[in-house]
Amino acid sequence: MILSQKHLLGLKGMPRQDIDLILNHAVSFKEILERPIKKVPTLRGKTIVNLFFENSTRTRISFELAEKRLSGDTINFSANTSSMKKGETLRDTARNIEAMRIEIIVVRHPAVGVPYFLAQCTKATIINAGDGTNEHPSQALLDIFTLKEKFKELKDLRVVIIGDILHSRVARSNIWGLKTMGARVAVCGPSTLLPLEMKEFGVDVYTDLNRAIADADVLYILRLQMERQNSGLLPSLREYRERFGINKQRLKKVKPSLVILHPGPINRGLELSSEVADGEFSLILDQVTNGVAVRMAILYLLGGGDVESSGV
Amino acid sequence: MILSQKHLLGLKGMPRQDIDLILNHAVSFKEILERPIKKVPTLRGKTIVNLFFENSTRTRISFELAEKRLSGDTINFSANTSSMKKGETLRDTARNIEAMRIEIIVVRHPAVGVPYFLAQCTKATIINAGDGTNEHPSQALLDIFTLKEKFKELKDLRVVIIGDILHSRVARSNIWGLKTMGARVAVCGPSTLLPLEMKEFGVDVYTDLNRAIADADVLYILRLQMERQNSGLLPSLREYRERFGINKQRLKKVKPSLVILHPGPINRGLELSSEVADGEFSLILDQVTNGVAVRMAILYLLGGGDVESSGV
Amino acid sequence: MILSQKHLLGLKGMPRQDIDLILNHAVSFKEILERPIKKVPTLRGKTIVNLFFENSTRTRISFELAEKRLSGDTINFSANTSSMKKGETLRDTARNIEAMRIEIIVVRHPAVGVPYFLAQCTKATIINAGDGTNEHPSQALLDIFTLKEKFKELKDLRVVIIGDILHSRVARSNIWGLKTMGARVAVCGPSTLLPLEMKEFGVDVYTDLNRAIADADVLYILRLQMERQNSGLLPSLREYRERFGINKQRLKKVKPSLVILHPGPINRGLELSSEVADGEFSLILDQVTNGVAVRMAILYLLGGGDVESSGV
Repeated sequence: MILSQKHLLGLKGMPRQDIDLILNHAVSFKEILERPIKKVPTLRGKTIVNLFFENSTRTRISFELAEKRLSGDTINFSANTSSMKKGETLRDTARNIEAMRIEIIVVRHPAVGVPYFLAQCTKATIINAGDGTNEHPSQALLDIFTLKEKFKELKDLRVVIIGDILHSRVARSNIWGLKTMGARVAVCGPSTLLPLEMKEFGVDVYTDLNRAIADADVLYILRLQMERQNSGLLPSLREYRERFGINKQRLKKVKPSLVILHPGPINRGLELSSEVADGEFSLILDQVTNGVAVRMAILYLLGGGDVESSGV
Repeated sequence: MILSQKHLLGLKGMPRQDIDLILNHAVSFKEILERPIKKVPTLRGKTIVNLFFENSTRTRISFELAEKRLSGDTINFSANTSSMKKGETLRDTARNIEAMRIEIIVVRHPAVGVPYFLAQCTKATIINAGDGTNEHPSQALLDIFTLKEKFKELKDLRVVIIGDILHSRVARSNIWGLKTMGARVAVCGPSTLLPLEMKEFGVDVYTDLNRAIADADVLYILRLQMERQNSGLLPSLREYRERFGINKQRLKKVKPSLVILHPGPINRGLELSSEVADGEFSLILDQVTNGVAVRMAILYLLGGGDVESSGV
Repeated sequence: MILSQKHLLGLKGMPRQDIDLILNHAVSFKEILERPIKKVPTLRGKTIVNLFFENSTRTRISFELAEKRLSGDTINFSANTSSMKKGETLRDTARNIEAMRIEIIVVRHPAVGVPYFLAQCTKATIINAGDGTNEHPSQALLDIFTLKEKFKELKDLRVVIIGDILHSRVARSNIWGLKTMGARVAVCGPSTLLPLEMKEFGVDVYTDLNRAIADADVLYILRLQMERQNSGLLPSLREYRERFGINKQRLKKVKPSLVILHPGPINRGLELSSEVADGEFSLILDQVTNGVAVRMAILYLLGGGDVESSGV
């Protein structure tokens, strides 16, 4: 079985069988992460460039670990030290990378659509590691993997995404992916941060947190981007915490099987209290572990490896 | 066959047989770049430090790829985060690197002569990745390789280098290398940017672009360094483009076999129009691919590998 | 034989047999550094993160080389580009690293105690690469290794550490380690830079350099931290050089077997003259070579490798 696409650009429109294929392979790769020798020769002799136009730690390191554990050769390329400063076009950068016979480009960029553009102008495989407010598909796949580990079946699971939905690529990719998996998705946040089109997508919209979480199976807490504070869209931090912050008090009447996800890094005491972040409901560190396994699966399936050489 | 020198400092004075040896090995390494597994064990267990005192993307990544595809261990060391800031002398840095048993130093530095100095004070092998306005030998070797692929024989080939010759290490290394290979070299640019000594080297000098390119086989377009604009040596960008910019209009009467080289990154619409950069005459992306192959050959020959262990 | 501890946090309280074990293994690893292929498979499939919250060249590169020569996968993580800027707590960073199944964290941090804190909140092995003014144990171990190479036995060896003892983690780790090895340690520097508790530790204290070095076997010259100049603790640079700078003149009446150590980078002409730094007494470059060997031994012993797979 192979993916129906050459790139991983977004979960919007990605067929269910592609998602399942990635999730199934991730199960095998997660087993490798628990071995003393966490390395398989799948991508030996292949080169992956991590092309990051935005600062990132966890996503970049998670991809870099996945690449190295598959024995790929990794090149890190950050916008700060790049030819970008010399005014080179994105297309020229991409075609140069292709000319150097680099097989896979993992790209993060502040502008929506950059990975789609790169996919059109190079022969390399493109993996979207976040494009503006649009998509962050590997994040949503690791979130879905984490929920499948817990619930086995996502059909009719009630997932509530809480926070700044408007600017969140994590929210968007999760909405597409979770709906494909049959989950029931709701969003909750300040009305200024809820995109109008949500209802059309069949996503329930709440501005009252208590109502939103009443019958939830999953709370997906978004990180509050502090830099949005001066945008005029956000209430004060104190007000945000009071209306949308998740703490133990809030969770008194939830389902006992509730789980909490967060893409990290956490603003402890703001969108999420430490007690809850480190408490019984939290799957946040599972997400981090699963992130490496899911990215190994993505790289494996897109890198053209075959099962026999993967050592799985 | 081995190189007559332990270092690659510049093409000035480099014997023809050394150049041929590198070019011949690069042919084999280019084949490796087209394989699914682009990796040979040549430099396994050897360490190379990329010691870059100037920002660079393409040269650093090209070397890093060459090193990794030869299975070398690569350490990146950029001036911004280095002890240099703590006032350590260059000689101390070099002797520390040597003491760590690093075999090869790839160095780029804004000052002329730094690689020559390092070669004197350490036992490590030095590869000059650009020293001030002096030399950039690996660039010229990849350019010569690209021309040999196209023309087979460089003898009497008419190569015109266009732009800021005065400050260009690319121009200088190409002049030395191309003349050794028997080519006829001319330079063309604003008179303020043409070094006086060119004629003594047997290089034709033009300030009129149309005359320069009339019977050219190769146009080597240099990148215009924008930061020179306030030097008083450069006309306005508009004037530069009008007098020296290469576009389709200019190329109406050239030889049909003409080729165009550019070291990148391109200022599209300034020294070179997009139409020409992406058009039939352009070998610019071949240069990028060949850069990796030529650098693999250089590292292989200087790293003391022997043919049998190279997997070629 | 294995180490009695899971981490390398400091030399204070480290048992003599642990130090001996590391030094003995370093002998084998130093041999590997002199081989043409400087690589053993000890840490294959293990991941080490170099988590540097302070700029560093030599320590970071020395660790990175040690990791790569043991075939480990290395991730570099510098504070400048990290989530730290996004306000993530140190504990969250550490637990994320652990969740990614990274086995070893090499950490440098400006605050005293950070490595101890990390050891408490993650299951990963922590190696202290310098915490504030507290300890820099791998530096002291390489220094002790260098002295053992020269003198075989450290018992009753007279070691004088010269400079800013107050702020020096190098001094502190050396004092603990050298005393465990039975050496007689003295410190010498401006009285404002000598901690009061030294005498209690059984360390002789001098403010007169000539008296301090009269019967010394080893002078350990600390680097003068220029940034301390405005602290009010330091005399002028000229006065410092005159009172505590080591030059040939100073060394007229020393033991012929005297050796000089310095952790680098050297302020030539300030705390140490070039003549002496490059002269007969100096073991400074041996320290650099030994640093890689000692760090390989540390990583090997803490990384859970066994001798057979190390290729030693």
